[in-house]
Amino acid sequence: MTPRIGILGGGQLGLMLAESLQHLGADVTVLEKDPDAPCARRLAGVLEAPYDDAAALKALFGQCTTVTFDSENVPSEPLEPYSAQLKPSLEVLRTSQHRALEKKFLEGHGFRTVRHQAVEAGQSIRDAAVAFGFPCIVKSVLGGYDGKGQAVLRGPDDCRGLGPAVLEEKLELQTEVSCIVARGAGHEQVFEVFENLHHEHILDFTLLPARISPELQRTAKDTALRIARELGVEGLLTVEFFVAGGQLYVNELAPRTHNSGHVTREACSSSQFDALARILCGLPPPVPRLNPGAWVMGQLLGDVWLAQGKDGGALDLSALRDFPEVVEVYTYGKLEARPKRKMGHFVVRADTIEVALAKARALRAALVATAGR
Amino acid sequence: MTPRIGILGGGQLGLMLAESLQHLGADVTVLEKDPDAPCARRLAGVLEAPYDDAAALKALFGQCTTVTFDSENVPSEPLEPYSAQLKPSLEVLRTSQHRALEKKFLEGHGFRTVRHQAVEAGQSIRDAAVAFGFPCIVKSVLGGYDGKGQAVLRGPDDCRGLGPAVLEEKLELQTEVSCIVARGAGHEQVFEVFENLHHEHILDFTLLPARISPELQRTAKDTALRIARELGVEGLLTVEFFVAGGQLYVNELAPRTHNSGHVTREACSSSQFDALARILCGLPPPVPRLNPGAWVMGQLLGDVWLAQGKDGGALDLSALRDFPEVVEVYTYGKLEARPKRKMGHFVVRADTIEVALAKARALRAALVATAGR
Repeated sequence: MTPRIGILGGGQLGLMLAESLQHLGADVTVLEKDPDAPCARRLAGVLEAPYDDAAALKALFGQCTTVTFDSENVPSEPLEPYSAQLKPSLEVLRTSQHRALEKKFLEGHGFRTVRHQAVEAGQSIRDAAVAFGFPCIVKSVLGGYDGKGQAVLRGPDDCRGLGPAVLEEKLELQTEVSCIVARGAGHEQVFEVFENLHHEHILDFTLLPARISPELQRTAKDTALRIARELGVEGLLTVEFFVAGGQLYVNELAPRTHNSGHVTREACSSSQFDALARILCGLPPPVPRLNPGAWVMGQLLGDVWLAQGKDGGALDLSALRDFPEVVEVYTYGKLEARPKRKMGHFVVRADTIEVALAKARALRAALVATAGR
Repeated sequence: MTPRIGILGGGQLGLMLAESLQHLGADVTVLEKDPDAPCARRLAGVLEAPYDDAAALKALFGQCTTVTFDSENVPSEPLEPYSAQLKPSLEVLRTSQHRALEKKFLEGHGFRTVRHQAVEAGQSIRDAAVAFGFPCIVKSVLGGYDGKGQAVLRGPDDCRGLGPAVLEEKLELQTEVSCIVARGAGHEQVFEVFENLHHEHILDFTLLPARISPELQRTAKDTALRIARELGVEGLLTVEFFVAGGQLYVNELAPRTHNSGHVTREACSSSQFDALARILCGLPPPVPRLNPGAWVMGQLLGDVWLAQGKDGGALDLSALRDFPEVVEVYTYGKLEARPKRKMGHFVVRADTIEVALAKARALRAALVATAGR
């Protein structure tokens, strides 16, 4: 029998996972409400419904042996009847989707996080922030991503509203890194550490290798693996870290493939998507050997389309003529280009990370400067 | 405007090309008559009709800016009205699909082939073979692949029928190699040389690097590039060579991606499919840098499914547990497993080609020995 794997969410992460699953011979069903989502546009077998639609969930879990999610921002309650089929587990989903629970878990298991304070439901954020100290960052407990649901508080006048929320100390960051762990079928694999540069809270470039010391890299890999074990993740866990004062602070957990992991499609012998696909099919994840060289993944936001005078469709890629270092361009097939919407990515390879990053910046500038046709 | 690229043929080569095209942002239409072909099962936008269906061809070329083919065994006459949109060109298709024309072209341009003799239409194959000498191989001029349309003639008693056909001297082969050239948008890239091991005339394993001298590898790359230039290929050209007596003999030309090129998906920074996709979108092919290590691609025929007691569907891949060296398994989604039908492939990486080949053989033996579930 052909296994059928379900994915809650039909974004680009779901699409790339679906491709890896199909390569292994699995059939795929995706639950996604947006008809302009990448999976809806390119895959057969998409159920068009919200994540909490009872009938759609029943159909999804009825068809599929195993179901995963391409975002932790899916409501967990409607999944309760189906928890036996969910990978990673409902508990992992709940812990990682709730900023206060996540921090509590990390603290309780001795992992270093930034100093923080939960603000309970109904409690004044202003009172809590005054007690915590300024400047700090306030974050919603549920649903934030790409900087949504968070704000910097520089003094009492910036504070509004009530909890639930989490306050975090504002560190002076050297940089940010992430590390992906794959666990399944009794095997564990840890990918190399990526460095992540953000622009307006959105991932802009991922660098591999990361420009941090070998010791910090080892610590990041070791910490990510220990967190995945403590959480009991079966599937993937991406751990995001702040780097400040020469130390690592666990920032966030994402129990899934990650945008920073796009770089693994080219830089590693097996990608994050291949790793998760194997695990969902009951197989151990393959060894993610690093290909030599320096790799940079650059995100392509809707802004690049808009700069070309396009409101969607295919990007004019003629600038690639001058960039033989670009080993992958992957656009997600989204029809509508909106500012800050993730529409695609590319990967550049060079001999040093400085050259790769310079080429990546130059390519994006050239794409922006291309007159649409 | 989103470019739409057409593919004549919806087999595994067409499917992997379609994926690469979609990543670049192109839409894809495939013309394929078999509803159990890989593209028909997994892609939206498949026209179900034979390659010579006039209405379907009109629709295909009407929708698409550029059209290619995933096999040279497509009838060329119905394509005449659309030759301006075809890549590679109709002339390249005609030369490479006709064994006698192909040999004539190679000879006329000074490329070394095995000694051969065309047998004209209506001429006796027996008479021609007696004059040519035994043992020899008789091959049909059109339509042969995987050993179909050819036979070894050891003496007059083996000879039957009339031409058109081609007779070839039967060489004692050391091995066979292939080389892929990508040409487009004023750029040329040549992939590294692969060694191909066959079993019952079907590609069994592809080895990269090939176990021939560096000089022979350079000669193969140089020869392949010169042939592609002489033919004026815009797109891909795969050149297959015999290796005998320390020399290379051009065996066949395939103006397309090739099964031996599956190995480029993992062993190179950009695959043969990525290269052709870029060219079809009017972009130069990227540099196909070789990742270090030794790579073996193993074909998975329907026989492996049948050995597992399956007449189709997903293969039981649990044997992968013992093979962390397997960096890719790609099954083509064909529902019906038949003996010798190409159903999938896998790629193994190791430090030496001997170890990689041994692992590949062991994996396939383990898959065959897996009791279906």
